[in-house]
Amino acid sequence: MLSREDTIELSDITDLNQLKSELNHLPAVDVGDYISELPGERRAIAFRLLSKGCAIAVFEYLPTEIQEELIEALHDTQVCQIIEAMRPDDRVALFDELPAGVVKRLLPQLSPEERAATATIIGYPEGTAGRVMTTEYVRLRQGLTVGEALAKIKQSDRDKETIYYAYVTDDSRKLMQVVSLRQLVFTLPDTPIKDIGSDRVIKVYTETSQEDVARQMQRYDLIAVPVVDREDRLVGIITIDDVVDILQEEATEDIQKLAGVASGEDSSLSSPWSKLQNRLPWLLGIMALYIGASSSIAPFQDTIAKIPVLAVIMPLFSNTGGAVGTQALTVTIRSLGVGEVTAGDTLKILGKELLAGLGTALGLGLTMILLALIWTPPDERWVALVAGSVMAANSIVAVTLGTLLPIAFKQVNVDPALISGPLVTTLLDTIGFILFLSLITLSVNVWHL
Amino acid sequence: MLSREDTIELSDITDLNQLKSELNHLPAVDVGDYISELPGERRAIAFRLLSKGCAIAVFEYLPTEIQEELIEALHDTQVCQIIEAMRPDDRVALFDELPAGVVKRLLPQLSPEERAATATIIGYPEGTAGRVMTTEYVRLRQGLTVGEALAKIKQSDRDKETIYYAYVTDDSRKLMQVVSLRQLVFTLPDTPIKDIGSDRVIKVYTETSQEDVARQMQRYDLIAVPVVDREDRLVGIITIDDVVDILQEEATEDIQKLAGVASGEDSSLSSPWSKLQNRLPWLLGIMALYIGASSSIAPFQDTIAKIPVLAVIMPLFSNTGGAVGTQALTVTIRSLGVGEVTAGDTLKILGKELLAGLGTALGLGLTMILLALIWTPPDERWVALVAGSVMAANSIVAVTLGTLLPIAFKQVNVDPALISGPLVTTLLDTIGFILFLSLITLSVNVWHL
Repeated sequence: MLSREDTIELSDITDLNQLKSELNHLPAVDVGDYISELPGERRAIAFRLLSKGCAIAVFEYLPTEIQEELIEALHDTQVCQIIEAMRPDDRVALFDELPAGVVKRLLPQLSPEERAATATIIGYPEGTAGRVMTTEYVRLRQGLTVGEALAKIKQSDRDKETIYYAYVTDDSRKLMQVVSLRQLVFTLPDTPIKDIGSDRVIKVYTETSQEDVARQMQRYDLIAVPVVDREDRLVGIITIDDVVDILQEEATEDIQKLAGVASGEDSSLSSPWSKLQNRLPWLLGIMALYIGASSSIAPFQDTIAKIPVLAVIMPLFSNTGGAVGTQALTVTIRSLGVGEVTAGDTLKILGKELLAGLGTALGLGLTMILLALIWTPPDERWVALVAGSVMAANSIVAVTLGTLLPIAFKQVNVDPALISGPLVTTLLDTIGFILFLSLITLSVNVWHL
Repeated sequence: MLSREDTIELSDITDLNQLKSELNHLPAVDVGDYISELPGERRAIAFRLLSKGCAIAVFEYLPTEIQEELIEALHDTQVCQIIEAMRPDDRVALFDELPAGVVKRLLPQLSPEERAATATIIGYPEGTAGRVMTTEYVRLRQGLTVGEALAKIKQSDRDKETIYYAYVTDDSRKLMQVVSLRQLVFTLPDTPIKDIGSDRVIKVYTETSQEDVARQMQRYDLIAVPVVDREDRLVGIITIDDVVDILQEEATEDIQKLAGVASGEDSSLSSPWSKLQNRLPWLLGIMALYIGASSSIAPFQDTIAKIPVLAVIMPLFSNTGGAVGTQALTVTIRSLGVGEVTAGDTLKILGKELLAGLGTALGLGLTMILLALIWTPPDERWVALVAGSVMAANSIVAVTLGTLLPIAFKQVNVDPALISGPLVTTLLDTIGFILFLSLITLSVNVWHL
């Protein structure tokens, strides 16, 4: 990574020739960062200093806004060279963001093969293997020898990650075997590849979700996985660098959705307007949900007027109940998310959570009694006992809801991370308030405590 | 992945020979899962059916409890063969978990090289590059030709991931260049490697944290990175499969800590006792913190007795304030976590968050007024205005704290994910309650509303 000092040094360079030589020797991602941080008008100048190969590599690392800017600023010939040389999956990601007019202008200028590759990938829905795969891979026809295979690989001259595995297909492109570069290099050239290839190919389908692809590659420690269509014909591969990014995005999404950031794609550097769009509707939603909880208090205003210490105790109690629920909820959502458990394990999970919940209920119930005793005047000490019992009961309800709700949402294909959080907190508060205030009111009215 | 049906089929096999042949052909991770799910007494039987190579591969995928169980159940010779063949980093991970007595028995039976490799890795602190690296890599001395290098690689016969890059060192093991298998294969055999190797080697130090390693490998799309000591001498490499696991673990930790699961290592399948240990202390901690918020209500009991609708409004208001804070907090923590921003960007981040916060304040303040009007009786309508203003003010405080607290914690090296959540919620509730109840009390006492 470029340290802050390196960046300052680079911007101190006034001699364009020196800057040119520096830029062309740095890793592409670092040059991308350097160009992104330049003021608008200097970006195109710096970019023009890059050699053709370097410009292509750097372009892929730029944020979409800056890619758009450069597409407008550069000559169409240069733009076309870059777009033509991009990996098809990166090209599709760019086209997704560009204005339709620009895409329409660029698309016809691509070579027929690259246009076909782009069209193939764009045809699959976002978030599927078909959409994140690249069509640049090494395909070998059955019947070749090791020597012929190596010659073919050498000639194809693909990206560094994509040549470590080659895929063997029959004449109808049906995927038959996988063979690694390592195997090819260390086997005698006239050995038929079918003797060294592996028949048990781990593959994914074009419609497999990108999360499932990532999980499989992680599980089997793969650096590339072939993507096939329903007829088992090879259509692309997915490489580990894309999977690392997918896993990071998924984790960010889970974290943010649990905190009520709707898109799961907010960042400290997002625009204020997109932040507001991502957050306010959700906040209004939980306020609306919470009307239920607050309304459940309304009928008990007489009781509260009589025993105002209830207003001191109630927040403590809703705060903690929500926290117990959130813990169970988060652990369940993450375990479901990384594929560690499925709906089939519901009883096993619930058993463990309830056992832990009993301990929690005991601990929190007793603490609640002690705390409530601090605030209650001598003739209202009994309120502390009621508060402790309700806290304990609420904890049990909390772990139960926190465990079952995400599993249930997942079963009906609703993203549990997005909805279960506020629902659990609100349900818990409502149940807690009603239980607590009813018991107190009952005690006051019936036993005249 | 083995589908549920496959697993059932496997357990239906009563013919041991058939089971043996099936097991020895499946991917090691699937066999590991199959053995893990067998009842205790049958695990060792199934494991003994595996061929030597297969047994070694499968062993690495078993959970530590089952590894321990097998170490006890198998003959010492077989155990030694397995331990000897494990990758040094996996072996260290196992030794970390095994009882000291077992490690003492096993360690002397390792070959001198493997014992040395184990000792090297165990010497580095947990969570650093030194601890997660493997010492199995291909090192080439300067001055070799491509043909000699390939012969050396062929002879070394390492793991599949570790041979795609070879590292060139001088006589004192100082790291000079990196060269890929691909370059070697497609260059004439008598070319000196120094002509094709790259001098700009991206490397990490033994003391680099595993998160930083993961972030660098993700940034530069590497499938392996060399680890050097302070004198730039090559001591190991880290491969992408380990990085994928590190990133997943880090994400799980962040998610769980934000929800108050202290270790960040809980799972749906953890034991109830470890769940309780991970969660109860944190819950008691937030109850203790919350005494402050609840105590801030206590002095206002007279006001609440007079205007009991306050008890209806207050929970809504603390619930939403906490939610606003949590959104900003989570986005900030994640952006810091993935290295997208640093403390140097504080003002830029705060500016964006405050602008979005103004919108939020407006939206929530107005909604609060509308909602409060539902519950307040005609002569207490003014309470709704106060509630709306406090809600707006609280939202601004919420985004400010949610943005600044994690940055501040990170600066003093306290994990922001673990502490900022409850602190923000509690602070917000306390500030909100005091502000709201003071304003109401003031209005009642001074203006006699």
